[in-house]
Amino acid sequence: MPESAARITIEKAGSHAGELVEIAGWLYNLRKSGKIAFPLLRDGTGILQCVAVKSSLDEAVFESLRNLTQESSLIVRGRIRAEPRAPGGYELDVEGAEVVQRVPEATPYPITPKDHGTDFLMDHRHLWLRSKRQHAIIRVRHEVIRAIREYFDTNGFTLVDTPIFTPAACEGTTTLFEVDYFNDEKVYLTQSGQLYNEANAMAFGKVYCFGPTFRAEKSKTRRHLTEFWMVEPEMAYATLDDVKQVAEELIVFVVGRVLENRRVELEALERDVSKLECVKAPFPRISYDEAVETLRKKGSAIEWGGDFGGTDETLLSEDYDRPVMVDRYPSQIKAFYFQPDPVRPELALGVDVLAPEGYGEVIGGGQRIHDLELLEKRLDEHNLPREAFEWYLDLRRYGSVPHGGFGMGVERFVAWMCGLEHIRETIAYPRMLYRIRP
Amino acid sequence: MPESAARITIEKAGSHAGELVEIAGWLYNLRKSGKIAFPLLRDGTGILQCVAVKSSLDEAVFESLRNLTQESSLIVRGRIRAEPRAPGGYELDVEGAEVVQRVPEATPYPITPKDHGTDFLMDHRHLWLRSKRQHAIIRVRHEVIRAIREYFDTNGFTLVDTPIFTPAACEGTTTLFEVDYFNDEKVYLTQSGQLYNEANAMAFGKVYCFGPTFRAEKSKTRRHLTEFWMVEPEMAYATLDDVKQVAEELIVFVVGRVLENRRVELEALERDVSKLECVKAPFPRISYDEAVETLRKKGSAIEWGGDFGGTDETLLSEDYDRPVMVDRYPSQIKAFYFQPDPVRPELALGVDVLAPEGYGEVIGGGQRIHDLELLEKRLDEHNLPREAFEWYLDLRRYGSVPHGGFGMGVERFVAWMCGLEHIRETIAYPRMLYRIRP
Repeated sequence: MPESAARITIEKAGSHAGELVEIAGWLYNLRKSGKIAFPLLRDGTGILQCVAVKSSLDEAVFESLRNLTQESSLIVRGRIRAEPRAPGGYELDVEGAEVVQRVPEATPYPITPKDHGTDFLMDHRHLWLRSKRQHAIIRVRHEVIRAIREYFDTNGFTLVDTPIFTPAACEGTTTLFEVDYFNDEKVYLTQSGQLYNEANAMAFGKVYCFGPTFRAEKSKTRRHLTEFWMVEPEMAYATLDDVKQVAEELIVFVVGRVLENRRVELEALERDVSKLECVKAPFPRISYDEAVETLRKKGSAIEWGGDFGGTDETLLSEDYDRPVMVDRYPSQIKAFYFQPDPVRPELALGVDVLAPEGYGEVIGGGQRIHDLELLEKRLDEHNLPREAFEWYLDLRRYGSVPHGGFGMGVERFVAWMCGLEHIRETIAYPRMLYRIRP
Repeated sequence: MPESAARITIEKAGSHAGELVEIAGWLYNLRKSGKIAFPLLRDGTGILQCVAVKSSLDEAVFESLRNLTQESSLIVRGRIRAEPRAPGGYELDVEGAEVVQRVPEATPYPITPKDHGTDFLMDHRHLWLRSKRQHAIIRVRHEVIRAIREYFDTNGFTLVDTPIFTPAACEGTTTLFEVDYFNDEKVYLTQSGQLYNEANAMAFGKVYCFGPTFRAEKSKTRRHLTEFWMVEPEMAYATLDDVKQVAEELIVFVVGRVLENRRVELEALERDVSKLECVKAPFPRISYDEAVETLRKKGSAIEWGGDFGGTDETLLSEDYDRPVMVDRYPSQIKAFYFQPDPVRPELALGVDVLAPEGYGEVIGGGQRIHDLELLEKRLDEHNLPREAFEWYLDLRRYGSVPHGGFGMGVERFVAWMCGLEHIRETIAYPRMLYRIRP
């Protein structure tokens, strides 16, 4: 091929109109007649319709294009032309092409436009990711992660990665994955970086951790993965109200970024963006008491003191066009480390943020106990091994301050952004009860 | 306290000169006489000297400050004043103070200015992180991670997180951590996202993954952790030269960012920044053959065909003021997936980047095999279970293209930036052969 054609990506095609360019990619689809072929080329950044006219091409080149098989790799050379009717607004008039690897007819690309079952597609996840829909989801995910990090990086939070290998079983071992460490020792995979975050907040003021977390739940619901990514901020000198404010700001910021930069992807997913455009501050704030009252009016069988199920969360969120914050849960249904409400000590200063449209809890957090004696009492009440928590108690011995934070699961957030029923498509290689491959 | 004092962080003190402010933090250190006390306040963003004069303060407040213990938490109110002799250029004249929690004399903060051993400090890692030196390291780490992500995010790479739970043992199980999954199944913790990255590159063109990786090595060297963070880019339609170029660009960009934004921290670490300022493109590029020749001239006992040890890496890098790239290693010492050199097929198209000043290999990567038959042959030669690699072979069946990438370990990179002898301080909670606590 002549040297003069610059290699570009499809994403940038618009800024090369009229120019001779070269694009390296794969055949996404092909329409053809005897004298003209329209290969749809994908290169990972987008999809471009190419126009190959028999009369203006070397015959071998035209035939190689006309007979090309799905997902064969090829490099196309030609001129970018504005075409208002084309999906991206541009087409490429082919002047040359080189097939890099031709997928043989005998062993065609296994994913065809026909309706495959989810198991089949998940077994071929390494190929399924090439589809337009999966592309859109993963790009939204990237945007969400990028926006989360940007929010914390530009708001005075220090990233302090918390460990994956944790020694003690914080709240029972039933949902923990056990790992054989050296010398017959056992360690567990982290379920949350929170306890370490608290130490880090006392060192850095405002911190966050962001990494994979693990939960060995034998559940097959549409909201659970055994391996998922979670961001967890933690702030020293912070109260429940501060936690709520950061949670609200974060969500508004991230949704805004997705709307700003991922319109094309949301459209490909047929997401009703007007629903996301409603996500603005302030979010409604209700108490657990009010939530229970509302639920009972709506016919839920929940009793005061019980935890919300998925159906309850949906019932609660359906009254609002944006996330709703529910706070002050009964201490008995919350973890040992929640600071009690000063007025009604049977309540924990915790908050859950429920996404609209039935997407359930996307954030859970609150204010932590800062008093040494109270924390010691709670450890006893929960029958937790005192020795394993000595370091955690140290944080109340040496300069204890009110503090709090929360956790936000990436996959649930992405499911909400993309409007997905099940979270399994929000991560490239989901890990579930019956799925560890490929 | 009066409402009028705005809460600020020490980092921002300079922009509040002359103003009445409030700062919430901890007592880092204290100098005092009968009539004046100089509490050094830290708040996670910096350290500020406060000046408390007995005659101008409520007596109880002055006494509480004068007798305050290390790491007690307190909120100080006062006026910021420029003071050229102070470390940050500013001081605070105390007008009021509230001690939040006073560390009792009977149980003082365990880390004192005296020389503690590393084991003691690591046992108190949750507190040790409050020290000036650890602060500097973690902030450099944050900068490195942020810069890495920014480089890839702004250069057309899509973030695709690869799984931590992996089914098959790629290259033997001796250095893999095994996890009990459900139903007596075994899974392993990832050592690299590369194989998945290759699938993702065929879907997205240019991708990266960035997360924790695990290696069950029973080594106690200063360069090994069992849990460490690694960034791995992978590119479709890329050759060894493309891999080298991205590696070089990435390193130059990240070092530049550290120099730009973390001068104060590098100074606190007494890092010779002139050494980092040399890290500019182009990096010297030598072949394995040349490297062996050089090493033998320098007295190393290495024979052609052997792998470099830490000492060899140091000997090689000492000739250069910037990273050196060594390429085309004998295939026999490289993993099964390396593309052979077309001219000398006994060589693998792999490259290692060795940092200067003896910091060793910071990047390893290369071009992968794209030919189906050759890859099948290699799997056989390495006695790898064909079935577990069927999905990986699919990438050579459906639109195979030349491709490559590399891995860069965060902790080694941070050790190099900070000038640290041992990588254990480059992560908040290091995990090593004998260290899983706190």
